[in-house]
Amino acid sequence: MSIREELISQADSAKKAARKLAQAGSSEKNKALQMIADKLLERQAEILEINEKDMQKGRENGLSRALLDRLKLTEARIKGMAQGLREVAAQEDPIGEVPGMWKRPNGLQIGKIRVPLGVIGIIYEARPNVTVDVAGLCLKSGNTVILRGGSNAFNSNQILTNIIQDGLREAALPKEAVQLISTTDRKAVDILFTLNDYLDVLIPRGGAGLIQKVVNESKVPVIETGVGNCHVYVNKDADLTKAKKIVFNAKYSRPAVCNAAESLLVDQKVAEEFLPEMARIFAESDVELRGCEQTQKIVPGVTPATEEDYATEFLDYIMSVKVVADYEEAVEHIYQYGTKHSEAIVTENYTTARAFLDDIDAAAVYVNASTRFTDGGQFGLGAETGISTQKLHARGPMGLKELTTTKYIIMGSGQIRE
Amino acid sequence: MSIREELISQADSAKKAARKLAQAGSSEKNKALQMIADKLLERQAEILEINEKDMQKGRENGLSRALLDRLKLTEARIKGMAQGLREVAAQEDPIGEVPGMWKRPNGLQIGKIRVPLGVIGIIYEARPNVTVDVAGLCLKSGNTVILRGGSNAFNSNQILTNIIQDGLREAALPKEAVQLISTTDRKAVDILFTLNDYLDVLIPRGGAGLIQKVVNESKVPVIETGVGNCHVYVNKDADLTKAKKIVFNAKYSRPAVCNAAESLLVDQKVAEEFLPEMARIFAESDVELRGCEQTQKIVPGVTPATEEDYATEFLDYIMSVKVVADYEEAVEHIYQYGTKHSEAIVTENYTTARAFLDDIDAAAVYVNASTRFTDGGQFGLGAETGISTQKLHARGPMGLKELTTTKYIIMGSGQIRE
Repeated sequence: MSIREELISQADSAKKAARKLAQAGSSEKNKALQMIADKLLERQAEILEINEKDMQKGRENGLSRALLDRLKLTEARIKGMAQGLREVAAQEDPIGEVPGMWKRPNGLQIGKIRVPLGVIGIIYEARPNVTVDVAGLCLKSGNTVILRGGSNAFNSNQILTNIIQDGLREAALPKEAVQLISTTDRKAVDILFTLNDYLDVLIPRGGAGLIQKVVNESKVPVIETGVGNCHVYVNKDADLTKAKKIVFNAKYSRPAVCNAAESLLVDQKVAEEFLPEMARIFAESDVELRGCEQTQKIVPGVTPATEEDYATEFLDYIMSVKVVADYEEAVEHIYQYGTKHSEAIVTENYTTARAFLDDIDAAAVYVNASTRFTDGGQFGLGAETGISTQKLHARGPMGLKELTTTKYIIMGSGQIRE
Repeated sequence: MSIREELISQADSAKKAARKLAQAGSSEKNKALQMIADKLLERQAEILEINEKDMQKGRENGLSRALLDRLKLTEARIKGMAQGLREVAAQEDPIGEVPGMWKRPNGLQIGKIRVPLGVIGIIYEARPNVTVDVAGLCLKSGNTVILRGGSNAFNSNQILTNIIQDGLREAALPKEAVQLISTTDRKAVDILFTLNDYLDVLIPRGGAGLIQKVVNESKVPVIETGVGNCHVYVNKDADLTKAKKIVFNAKYSRPAVCNAAESLLVDQKVAEEFLPEMARIFAESDVELRGCEQTQKIVPGVTPATEEDYATEFLDYIMSVKVVADYEEAVEHIYQYGTKHSEAIVTENYTTARAFLDDIDAAAVYVNASTRFTDGGQFGLGAETGISTQKLHARGPMGLKELTTTKYIIMGSGQIRE
């Protein structure tokens, strides 16, 4: 079978499974989720062993510290995945909810009922925990899913998918509900773009290049996720102690994820007081700063920032820095370079804080907190399939509800339209 | 200026206007809507005169009866447009609504706030009332809009857009908030597809060909609308008197619109009783039926239906007919040929009715009512920008809320992520 034929066969079985899964009750779906969680813990040693193979290959391929961190599974992370599935099982089933029903003057009773999207395609980074998180969310929301993980995590994804399918089978649900594309050939992604007769939505996660490619080429409707060129803006009225902690956390706590800050904007009125100390803190942790001319004056020896640096999601221990004249320049800079993901201001000024919340067009707009909180769990929504940076359908962390749609049901007694 | 340059210049001014309009208060927006409604009535004679020119050209170009009906403006339709704008003005402003706000254990206060999408592009049929309906909805929901109406309605659309811009100006809102593409050159549509740096969403309305083209080629996120290959299924347990009224209304009351039924499915148990009388009613109104072999036996002389007929949205006084063995065959036929728009069953059987509501995957699923009700006004949602037949973002009639998105706002006091 060619890759195309194989993919169509997978997609076709996913579409058939979707019609079954749409009718599955919560108890069956929850049973499968619990089964999968149990099996993950039971087969932990095996998972870790296989993941270590991926890690070894990753090191040989020269993956960065940040990317290796993303690829690595540990006992704690497997426990986290299992725990995540149990939390999804505990969450309310969104399917079948009727967000509204009303009666029209002509007696028609009209309601909106929540239903699954159908078949979801997900293209993601070499980050195996995503395999389990995403499969769990799709399953609970009644969708079937075709997974295409980063090739560096292929072995880890394969064992995880096997475990998931075992769980599905034991819960008497179709195992085709969760499928991994069985090749690391890049052609598979191009083929996926054309399967709009089978897939209802394609969710690309990962680098800007991949996401642009999907947006430009896919015939399947897309939810853009993840590119996070996030800023922290230290306003002239900032509490600089809070600012230091927030900026450091936003960059350093996990730099390879999309909600990490990539760019620091500092109001010129506080730059001389703030930047030297901030630079010292970053230097101690081997974070490279790339600064504008004013930054270079204040922090001698800092790498000069290029125009491209301001537009770059480093996903690494690198941060661009720019001293801005005022609030307006900060907002314009974010408008120009931001990716509408997460943007933060640090300020004690009430009016400035309110203005920032209004003026910034992004999935998540923060006052006095780290951008790293943009996450389904941290927001209290449970596990997520990614952070949508587009405006249609879903914006910000996508939990269960974001994987559903609605349909209208209309109950009449012979009504016709005049 | 080339068409491309002109379009980019329009889109750029629309994007700038969008930042202003997003901050406009309800009272300014409502004032503009009322102004436009007043002006439509004041300048009615002028509008009708210009529309008559379009009608004349349409007749010369040999437009069908159904398409001419769609193109025509009358005193009543202008009054309807003005009334529609006043109803939109009276509707609650969706912008600024906070559908939810909560506090996390770490003290972060997280809220979701409703905001405009930004710049909306709409490609639509030669149907001038859409110009006003859509402009009103976009304006009220804080979005700017670029309109591309069918070339047969170009003159009508131009006068209507001028009137809208007059109203905007008098309400001190940017007139660039509503713009008509000033050429009927088809190239303009291809260019629109590439303007993803300016447009947040593209909504194509109209024929299947256009919509497929947009879906396949657009880099701008798309909401698919309108292709309605809608079915009415007369179940074996139908009340045949209701069935006749519903089927006739679903086809005949306005055949050129998307919620008109295109295909009639009749259970074989009632076909001999139902079809002769139904065929007689249609024959009296010059509606052409195209039937399967069984239909041909029951209704002598009926045009034979081809495979393609079952897949066709006629938008005309034509209807395909198929006798089905049972409920399952009806559901499978709809699954295969339907466009996920509006589907109806006529039945008195409770269990069958419930099953149909569950089994059919469409924007609107009816029991014992005409598909012609799929419409924002008829559903009680106010005016609409079209009927979404896709699953992402909006499904069914798109009113004000469907033209918005949300963003998360997060208010902290120095929180960082562990």
